[in-house]
Amino acid sequence: MNPERRNLLGDAAVEVLAEAGGRGLTHRAVDAAAGVPLGTAKNYFPTRDALLRTVAERCVEQYRAATAQVAAPEAGPADREGLVLLFRGLLTNLAGPGRLRMLAYLELQTEAARKPWLSEILDGIATADFEGFERAQRAAGLPVTAQRAAGVTLALHGAVLHLLADGPRTLAAAGLGDPDRFVRGLLDAVYPASAGSRPPVVDD
Amino acid sequence: MNPERRNLLGDAAVEVLAEAGGRGLTHRAVDAAAGVPLGTAKNYFPTRDALLRTVAERCVEQYRAATAQVAAPEAGPADREGLVLLFRGLLTNLAGPGRLRMLAYLELQTEAARKPWLSEILDGIATADFEGFERAQRAAGLPVTAQRAAGVTLALHGAVLHLLADGPRTLAAAGLGDPDRFVRGLLDAVYPASAGSRPPVVDD
Repeated sequence: MNPERRNLLGDAAVEVLAEAGGRGLTHRAVDAAAGVPLGTAKNYFPTRDALLRTVAERCVEQYRAATAQVAAPEAGPADREGLVLLFRGLLTNLAGPGRLRMLAYLELQTEAARKPWLSEILDGIATADFEGFERAQRAAGLPVTAQRAAGVTLALHGAVLHLLADGPRTLAAAGLGDPDRFVRGLLDAVYPASAGSRPPVVDD
Repeated sequence: MNPERRNLLGDAAVEVLAEAGGRGLTHRAVDAAAGVPLGTAKNYFPTRDALLRTVAERCVEQYRAATAQVAAPEAGPADREGLVLLFRGLLTNLAGPGRLRMLAYLELQTEAARKPWLSEILDGIATADFEGFERAQRAAGLPVTAQRAAGVTLALHGAVLHLLADGPRTLAAAGLGDPDRFVRGLLDAVYPASAGSRPPVVDD
């Protein structure tokens, strides 16, 4: 099998799942989106679960590329401002090239409630997010505790959900209208800017 | 049309969407889940969008019932401990009777990305959540700012997502293994217990 064609089909499957939802993810739709002869996707990914798996794998690859900056210990943000730029970039990416991937990811999440093998793949991505975001908060010099770091990561995950849903009243209520202001406000809530000397709470 | 039967079909539709996903939500499956003659669901809800709408409406009703305690200004938690119990209850409910409703809700969220009329319904629920949770934090006597309150609500929404996905490594990384400890840790991160006298940051 041709690896280039395999990737082309994988990207098409991500696009179909994001745009047409779980109901729309069929071999025929993937063939059409990839512009290949009918039957091609079925050759590479014989079952619907195989299609879902390739979407999950493409999401993992794209996630790794998108978060390479967060994940690399030597390339973390140098200070609070660097962390703001990093998190803001993750959120604004959702309005741009990251939107399809995250919509596909949300569809995978719902399917994962019924498919343990898929849940296992997503468990790895989400765990990496908590670890990478905590590392980034430490690199930025903030007085990190496990609770504070997890609180920030969870709030960002909640923000992603609402940014994808794009409900105007919800975005206003969550303070998500302006991602830059949002990220600064979130960090201020957990790491008050005036409290550089605030003693870290003991983790339990 | 019989309102009781209509509700029975609505509850069956919630169950089908939660258990079988968007692909499984068909009139036939709803008839089977409700134990009514084939064709009944189609009579009450002629299109698939009408089925989705009834799921959303049942979710709104159940949401209102579940959060009546949070939403009622006169019945908010009296103190920090009351707030812990309240938020903990919302999270532990996900492992019990609330699981089906929240799985259905997550499916609705993904469909909402493609259906503005559905997004509009969900926008109302999510907005009510931010308002109700902020009110509860104020009632508990915490030094609330808009940013802190939204941060807590977003982190709880992120927690719901991960509790539904139920990935063991993610739950450990997020500190979600023990909901009581999690809620206390989240509140400590945003409202340090030792800092009752901490001056509220000016909202912007």
